[in-house]
Amino acid sequence: MLSKSKIKQIKSLEYKKFRDELGLFVAEGEKLVGEILKSDIEVVDLFRFADSNLPKHNIREEIISENEMKRISFLKTTSAAFIVAKIPHKTLNINEINKSLNIVLDNIQDPGNLGTIMRLCDWFGIQNIICSHETADCFSPKVVQATMGAICRVNVFYVDLNDFFNSLDKNICIYGTFLDGENIYNTQLSVQGLVIMGNEGKGISQTTEKFVTKKLFIPCFSTNAAKPESLNVSVATAIICSEFKRWALVVGR
Amino acid sequence: MLSKSKIKQIKSLEYKKFRDELGLFVAEGEKLVGEILKSDIEVVDLFRFADSNLPKHNIREEIISENEMKRISFLKTTSAAFIVAKIPHKTLNINEINKSLNIVLDNIQDPGNLGTIMRLCDWFGIQNIICSHETADCFSPKVVQATMGAICRVNVFYVDLNDFFNSLDKNICIYGTFLDGENIYNTQLSVQGLVIMGNEGKGISQTTEKFVTKKLFIPCFSTNAAKPESLNVSVATAIICSEFKRWALVVGR
Repeated sequence: MLSKSKIKQIKSLEYKKFRDELGLFVAEGEKLVGEILKSDIEVVDLFRFADSNLPKHNIREEIISENEMKRISFLKTTSAAFIVAKIPHKTLNINEINKSLNIVLDNIQDPGNLGTIMRLCDWFGIQNIICSHETADCFSPKVVQATMGAICRVNVFYVDLNDFFNSLDKNICIYGTFLDGENIYNTQLSVQGLVIMGNEGKGISQTTEKFVTKKLFIPCFSTNAAKPESLNVSVATAIICSEFKRWALVVGR
Repeated sequence: MLSKSKIKQIKSLEYKKFRDELGLFVAEGEKLVGEILKSDIEVVDLFRFADSNLPKHNIREEIISENEMKRISFLKTTSAAFIVAKIPHKTLNINEINKSLNIVLDNIQDPGNLGTIMRLCDWFGIQNIICSHETADCFSPKVVQATMGAICRVNVFYVDLNDFFNSLDKNICIYGTFLDGENIYNTQLSVQGLVIMGNEGKGISQTTEKFVTKKLFIPCFSTNAAKPESLNVSVATAIICSEFKRWALVVGR
């Protein structure tokens, strides 16, 4: 039986202020909960239906009713499993960043975009995402759900981007997409480096732009008189990650 | 002053049944409304705030208040312009399909995915999207908003996919993504053909799979023990469109 104070605590985790205070986040759905149970994330509470399907685990669990699940769920359609877990604290390793391909998010606002970008970084083997403090929080319930499990595998760091860029190796390649950039399909890319993706409406900020060493552009192939203005940021990130990894696979090594 | 019956008619356009009956759809936001006003889509009603910013047009317009806009809007945050427009009727030209690159959607359910796919087809110069009857309706308010204007430029046809595939040239390439497909980055692609994208949960249906002449796969680069299972369908479509267009640009011609 869920206590009123427990329900209140769980619902408060919708807000960053309370997630930070309590150091906790939530995740729902048998698949996602199953992935978190198998990961090294520390689970605090596990609520599930009697007939739910979860991998073996050592977490104390509580069987709850559908009505109880409705009271804690953040989803329109409730699922059979729900967890409260500790927000993992990871340390940004600049040496590791200098030696790999990484994504930098400059003020991404939409939780769905952030979740999708984490999921595709997971797919493309990109371990680290470095975000400006203004970027959406990766432990908000909407982002966690949109990651489809990538929250267990991709590291997200929130930093002052100015300080971060200043701490990097001086000869590292820093890419950003701009309307006056080089056609990405005809450009010499690199196996290591950072790719900056800008805000949904405003793109890359001026303070961040000054760190870019190579401007890229995904060419528009439309032959219509009225041309589209832009691509959605998660779609653009997907195309860029794909092109960097294809380049490394086919050209770079 | 908006009449009650007009508000009721507009709100009914959330549902396909009424859109089909009335032959109408809605769009909101100065930018999107502006694009539709400049396109050949026939606008029936134009509602806007006195201070809204729209291109020149010959449509009879009605200035409405913020409260009235709230009563007709489908968005959480209302905008300064709203139109009701006629659903354009376009005819599928099989000859044109045989000679170009096209996307086939086999039961895409999420309106956001459909809107994003239309937007990226617009970017990549893909004029025609052929959908199974079970795919989300491109004139639903959510899809129209997600297209960001691509609704004016990309043609979407709803067909019986069996009949459609049977009507095509026998030697046309029909691609689909499968877990046992060829690595897309190492594969000979083509300038013309069709690329099938499957349902969010189930992928390409068995009845559609039998028409596929080449199976493709976007390789996963994750080195984690626990690997991601899949990419979101709009992200996968973006990567595939990008790769076909890059191939045509760099290799194919």
